[in-house]
Amino acid sequence: MKKYNTSPLSGMQELLPTEQAIFDQLKQNISDVYHQFGFLSIETPIIERTDILFAKAGGDTEKQIYKVSKTAESADSADQALRFDHTVPLARYVVEHNNDLAFPFQVTQINRNFRGERAQRGRFREFYQCDVDVIGREKLPFSYDAKVIACIYDALMTFNLPKMVVRISNRKVLAGFLSSLNLSDKTSEISNIIDHAEKVPLEKSKEALKELGLTDEQVEKVTAFMFTKGDYDTVEEKLTEIMGDISPVAEGLAELKEVFDILDTGLGKYIIDFMIIRGLDYYTGTVFEIMLEDYREIGSISGGGRYENLASNFTEQKFPGVGGSIGLTRLFFILREYNLIEMQEKRPIDYVLLPLSKNELDDSIQLSAKLREQGNIVDIDLTDRKLGDRFNRASKIADYAIVIGNDEVIKQRYIAKNLRTGETKEI
Amino acid sequence: MKKYNTSPLSGMQELLPTEQAIFDQLKQNISDVYHQFGFLSIETPIIERTDILFAKAGGDTEKQIYKVSKTAESADSADQALRFDHTVPLARYVVEHNNDLAFPFQVTQINRNFRGERAQRGRFREFYQCDVDVIGREKLPFSYDAKVIACIYDALMTFNLPKMVVRISNRKVLAGFLSSLNLSDKTSEISNIIDHAEKVPLEKSKEALKELGLTDEQVEKVTAFMFTKGDYDTVEEKLTEIMGDISPVAEGLAELKEVFDILDTGLGKYIIDFMIIRGLDYYTGTVFEIMLEDYREIGSISGGGRYENLASNFTEQKFPGVGGSIGLTRLFFILREYNLIEMQEKRPIDYVLLPLSKNELDDSIQLSAKLREQGNIVDIDLTDRKLGDRFNRASKIADYAIVIGNDEVIKQRYIAKNLRTGETKEI
Repeated sequence: MKKYNTSPLSGMQELLPTEQAIFDQLKQNISDVYHQFGFLSIETPIIERTDILFAKAGGDTEKQIYKVSKTAESADSADQALRFDHTVPLARYVVEHNNDLAFPFQVTQINRNFRGERAQRGRFREFYQCDVDVIGREKLPFSYDAKVIACIYDALMTFNLPKMVVRISNRKVLAGFLSSLNLSDKTSEISNIIDHAEKVPLEKSKEALKELGLTDEQVEKVTAFMFTKGDYDTVEEKLTEIMGDISPVAEGLAELKEVFDILDTGLGKYIIDFMIIRGLDYYTGTVFEIMLEDYREIGSISGGGRYENLASNFTEQKFPGVGGSIGLTRLFFILREYNLIEMQEKRPIDYVLLPLSKNELDDSIQLSAKLREQGNIVDIDLTDRKLGDRFNRASKIADYAIVIGNDEVIKQRYIAKNLRTGETKEI
Repeated sequence: MKKYNTSPLSGMQELLPTEQAIFDQLKQNISDVYHQFGFLSIETPIIERTDILFAKAGGDTEKQIYKVSKTAESADSADQALRFDHTVPLARYVVEHNNDLAFPFQVTQINRNFRGERAQRGRFREFYQCDVDVIGREKLPFSYDAKVIACIYDALMTFNLPKMVVRISNRKVLAGFLSSLNLSDKTSEISNIIDHAEKVPLEKSKEALKELGLTDEQVEKVTAFMFTKGDYDTVEEKLTEIMGDISPVAEGLAELKEVFDILDTGLGKYIIDFMIIRGLDYYTGTVFEIMLEDYREIGSISGGGRYENLASNFTEQKFPGVGGSIGLTRLFFILREYNLIEMQEKRPIDYVLLPLSKNELDDSIQLSAKLREQGNIVDIDLTDRKLGDRFNRASKIADYAIVIGNDEVIKQRYIAKNLRTGETKEI
């Protein structure tokens, strides 16, 4: 017999059924909240034209794209690859179908994406992303930024995690601030330093800024800026302190105000925090990240922001958008590492019926139908194995087992045994 | 500006949001029934090792496999491809995880598979398959065949289709019958003729049998056999008529009897029908197909069967199984062609709230929270466009719109307008 390696490929999530049930439940929770907020589902193909994907992908992403080819090529096969995110296919979708969509188009995509990253523990090459986006035609009010943020926050609330905090910034504030210091030409380098500031000692960040050629005063101001956080009024006050004249950041602040006017800031869930950059992404206004307050080392568990023009590569029409994403595969992995998900809470099946012989089969089928009508998940064990073996199987997948023998059929009385506690109840 | 083709690749399903909502609902219905029957979800990676896929794929399938390669190869990348069905990954999964699984392992996979078929209307290269399988260790009672069949039938019942009929046969009956005629060496050719008999005139089938070298008497017997159908007793009687001594088909008949002892045959939903072959698939006992009685030209809308040994390519352990599948992407396409799915029944959103200005925003958010608590899907339109435009958008995606102005806020009375009928109701 030929030997095969039957493990899944490296970088792929493959769960046991009980784990899968919990993963699926979390995914369903997210989907439910997204839908309740009025986001409509779409599903784009996993395989896209390579030129569509490359139009947007840059740098590392481009190297990580999986190309696809048929073993037997036919004449009509195009140059194809697996999508690496939901945003590029969404841009294509909006351009292709824009006459049939109702704008603002509130859309959710919950599905797998693919990146051939270097194999590493906790890094996945095939992973679920749970996205919401709102796409406008020509323009889109900034209150939609708040809607996206609140929706993702509420979706994550279903996970019963420790306290979350949403840190929100605006790229225009940073841009205005740097222009007031005549540092606009160093925007990307300084952004990069701020983006990494949380992971290194403060002196390292300051050194890096000095190496860029900033004066001591500029270094102090940039440092003060990146530590600015709080509610809207606090932040405006602090910026006035640092900058004197805050007119260069007026546009960004106005957008932040519009966002915070809608967000329910009562419980300190949402704060402005200028440390938030969102890496090299294509955001142009609002950016946000969600963290667990007491588990900062985990990093962000969700993020997103506003993009001026979703589909600029594909069309001259303007489609401004705002969106965010939960990287569920990676998040699930991390939450398990930190024991922040109760993995044992619920077995996937409610009742396993154990008919003692074929004589009790009809009765078992009837009972299963009744229990299913009540919303239960019911399995009938049809094997003729020893009762102990059948109980053993049941206890791996179900909460209760019900033995059905001649006696039960005659009396129409059924005893369900709790497979964890051994307690019994009559059905 | 560079021009891009923004259409999805040929052979890929891409739906508008209202269509997607219906597709998703059908998928959810199937999933719900599968779960109620006690099948556990698993999800295997879409990308598999090529040798795993090629171990089972033969002939055409092999040519249709999509191979995958990273644009920048790293040392640890294996030879990879996209899975073409759920069964091969399931075999790998069962071998890999068998120590952690509870047998009989009742499993469902609802996900996309990939085949680079020739492009053709109604043929998909990326398609959903909704599978259930039961895998035993060493042995598995034939009553599980009935369970799989009943479960898939019940899942399809949620579609509200015209009358369905499940046609069930058993490969061992055919094998025994052919051996009684000394035709065992022509089993695959004769199977192929029976498999296509419904699509050609009877004389064509008879000719084909003659060309194989069958005597006139053998041709008549094979023809009589393939038209044999009905309930168990009818079929046994008919076989006795044709064969005289039915001991060569005893094993197959016994399996059929075990299956029919469990199926609820009251309404003629399930019949034995020896015309059913299931092509060149690897089934070894029970085979079944589900059809719409009055739309036979559609062909089967689901099918499956029993396989002696799921994982014979990967292990020496024996895992007999039985399974079936609904090819949802293709089925959805066909049902729409035949107008057998009500596409307009339900818009994806229940209520769109239309606050007249920012003053009504807080109130709108509160109302949306209340409506969502009652299980409604609620969108708040945050634009400042003309009310007519906002109604227009709402009517494309929602059942009701609620205008919220100063008056409504003061009185806390809200009028929902039905966007189809124009009728109003107070909320």
